Amino acid sequence: MTSLNDLPLRADLRGQIPYGAPQLHVPVALNVNENTHPIPEPVALDIVRALAQAVLTVNRYPDREFTELRDRLAAYLGHELTRENIWAANGSNEVLQQVLQAFGGPGRSVLGFAPTYSMYSILASGTGTEWIEGDRDADFHLSPETAADWVTRTNPDLVFLCSPNNPTGTSLSLDTITAVYEASRGIVVVDEAYAEFEPDGTPSAVALLPGRERLLVSRTMSKAFAFAGARVGYLAADPAVTDALRLVRLPYHLSAFTQAAANAALAHSEEMLAMVDEIRGQRDRLVVELARLGYSPYESGSNFVLFGGVPDPHAIFEALLAEGILIRDVGIAGHLRVTAGTRTETTAFLEALERLGRPASSAGE
Amino acid sequence: MTSLNDLPLRADLRGQIPYGAPQLHVPVALNVNENTHPIPEPVALDIVRALAQAVLTVNRYPDREFTELRDRLAAYLGHELTRENIWAANGSNEVLQQVLQAFGGPGRSVLGFAPTYSMYSILASGTGTEWIEGDRDADFHLSPETAADWVTRTNPDLVFLCSPNNPTGTSLSLDTITAVYEASRGIVVVDEAYAEFEPDGTPSAVALLPGRERLLVSRTMSKAFAFAGARVGYLAADPAVTDALRLVRLPYHLSAFTQAAANAALAHSEEMLAMVDEIRGQRDRLVVELARLGYSPYESGSNFVLFGGVPDPHAIFEALLAEGILIRDVGIAGHLRVTAGTRTETTAFLEALERLGRPASSAGE
Repeated sequence: MTSLNDLPLRADLRGQIPYGAPQLHVPVALNVNENTHPIPEPVALDIVRALAQAVLTVNRYPDREFTELRDRLAAYLGHELTRENIWAANGSNEVLQQVLQAFGGPGRSVLGFAPTYSMYSILASGTGTEWIEGDRDADFHLSPETAADWVTRTNPDLVFLCSPNNPTGTSLSLDTITAVYEASRGIVVVDEAYAEFEPDGTPSAVALLPGRERLLVSRTMSKAFAFAGARVGYLAADPAVTDALRLVRLPYHLSAFTQAAANAALAHSEEMLAMVDEIRGQRDRLVVELARLGYSPYESGSNFVLFGGVPDPHAIFEALLAEGILIRDVGIAGHLRVTAGTRTETTAFLEALERLGRPASSAGE
Repeated sequence: MTSLNDLPLRADLRGQIPYGAPQLHVPVALNVNENTHPIPEPVALDIVRALAQAVLTVNRYPDREFTELRDRLAAYLGHELTRENIWAANGSNEVLQQVLQAFGGPGRSVLGFAPTYSMYSILASGTGTEWIEGDRDADFHLSPETAADWVTRTNPDLVFLCSPNNPTGTSLSLDTITAVYEASRGIVVVDEAYAEFEPDGTPSAVALLPGRERLLVSRTMSKAFAFAGARVGYLAADPAVTDALRLVRLPYHLSAFTQAAANAALAHSEEMLAMVDEIRGQRDRLVVELARLGYSPYESGSNFVLFGGVPDPHAIFEALLAEGILIRDVGIAGHLRVTAGTRTETTAFLEALERLGRPASSAGE
């Protein structure tokens, strides 16, 4: 049988293993920060209607400029953005890959602050961009000084900031973002995939866009919009940035179905986002209850909670899985990450965890 | 206003213009080789049902391994292929980009035979792969000797063969494909985007796969399946090749809608392909009629016809457009390309062309 080593694979890919959280069928899946609430039925019906309409002309190529989708995303983000400020692709992974294709590549580098979204370094590698791993302050925070110092010392071509940060849940202040922007000469991406789960009134980096042509704010419909299966990521930036992305995007990269479904969902933003409050409630409950159980959860502005004080993450992961509950070992020693599910799912997780007993390190408390 | 030159764009992208055939709304669009027949209604209804089902769980990430789709594509291609042989992505452009990401890249090269599909060189550039442009024999044919000679002289890491070739319609013999394979040390891709329009009994390069682990045959559902809007390209190859592509694909790159719609369409392959005969009939009619009108059409195994003997392609293009008929100037001096449409569309094109008069160069005939 032919193996990978028999093929003329690129040297830097040899020995690599594909990215992949396990896709197991379990009753309670809280491992990949999905929105576990299905789409509200009236909205689902409108999405089906839009898809049915798209089938009628699916023999034709889709709108290469996804004009209606850009209009709707601009309106959703507000801040006086227009379609010229908006770009979209098949998930924010593809958006970020296109950003690296346009502004990164061989001989260029991208700085991120670990622990952070694991796809950043994979996307960097896939585009031949050097990945520079910066550090964070205590408890995974990132001060303006620490962040700007890393930028100054490493002089990257791009900086990827994730706020709230996956997998820690940590939010960045606008001060940290502006400090990074001012210290850098390159592209600064703020990945706000989980922004809708921030406390009310938390400012978005979108507010910083005017006058900052190197600043890009990426978002996704996967999380708050419960649209992970539809693969719709997007970003807001100066129109010159979206012109640059047109040079590297594959023509017709967004299918007619993707555009139709996303347009229908965005026409119902308020109903789609109605579950966000409920999810924030379950997240806050996780923080309180995990502490009560003897773990050390971190504050989170997202739809998941990282918790430390886990003496044997692998054992807890497997014990929960045996009960049909899937969470995530994100590779931070002594830590696990859990997505805030529905009330029922969150209860199932907390009760199962409680049945496993208090963590050994806090047994004497 | 910020311009592209104010941004830290990669040096090799400076001054480039995005790929793009004009997306004009005209009554008769015969410019991008779409299948101009809408999907048959009973099939469309099943696709809508499948999409409606997918909406119910679209809050979850899609099957990252698109298992059912690979099963169905393997069954469609036949030749005892199984899911392990199959890969798919958002259009064959993305399939080919992933092939270049895995086997091309900086320091590597890909050979193609001009004139050919214009995206090849763009995909090469986007992945940092050197594009080598080989020549063809008379009338755009490509003999085993000419092709193998180019491979031997240029020693590329990949070869892209397009059969039938876009924009010329020329088919390659299996002898040419095996000659290229034997002369090369690298990956050989046969792009069979238009294979279903070949005369009955024409062998596919899929038949050559056993024992040739460096051979890849790419296909698309855009053309024969009338699915351009759905963005489904795929390839068949040794299982080790699909393992390699897993290293460079973005996780969850095929949306739940893409998978559901494609599965439903493939369940109706026979009905979906029923229009192919009609389209081949219109293509053959174009060849006969274009010759009668004084032009020099080429034999075509695809759903379009390239014709020479056009003294001023730009003038003809514009004159047809003024009548609401859009065809394609593919940049070959004295030539234009037209897609075989429905009988009505093809008639509209031929009648409009006839009204423009015989081409000047053949006026004396």
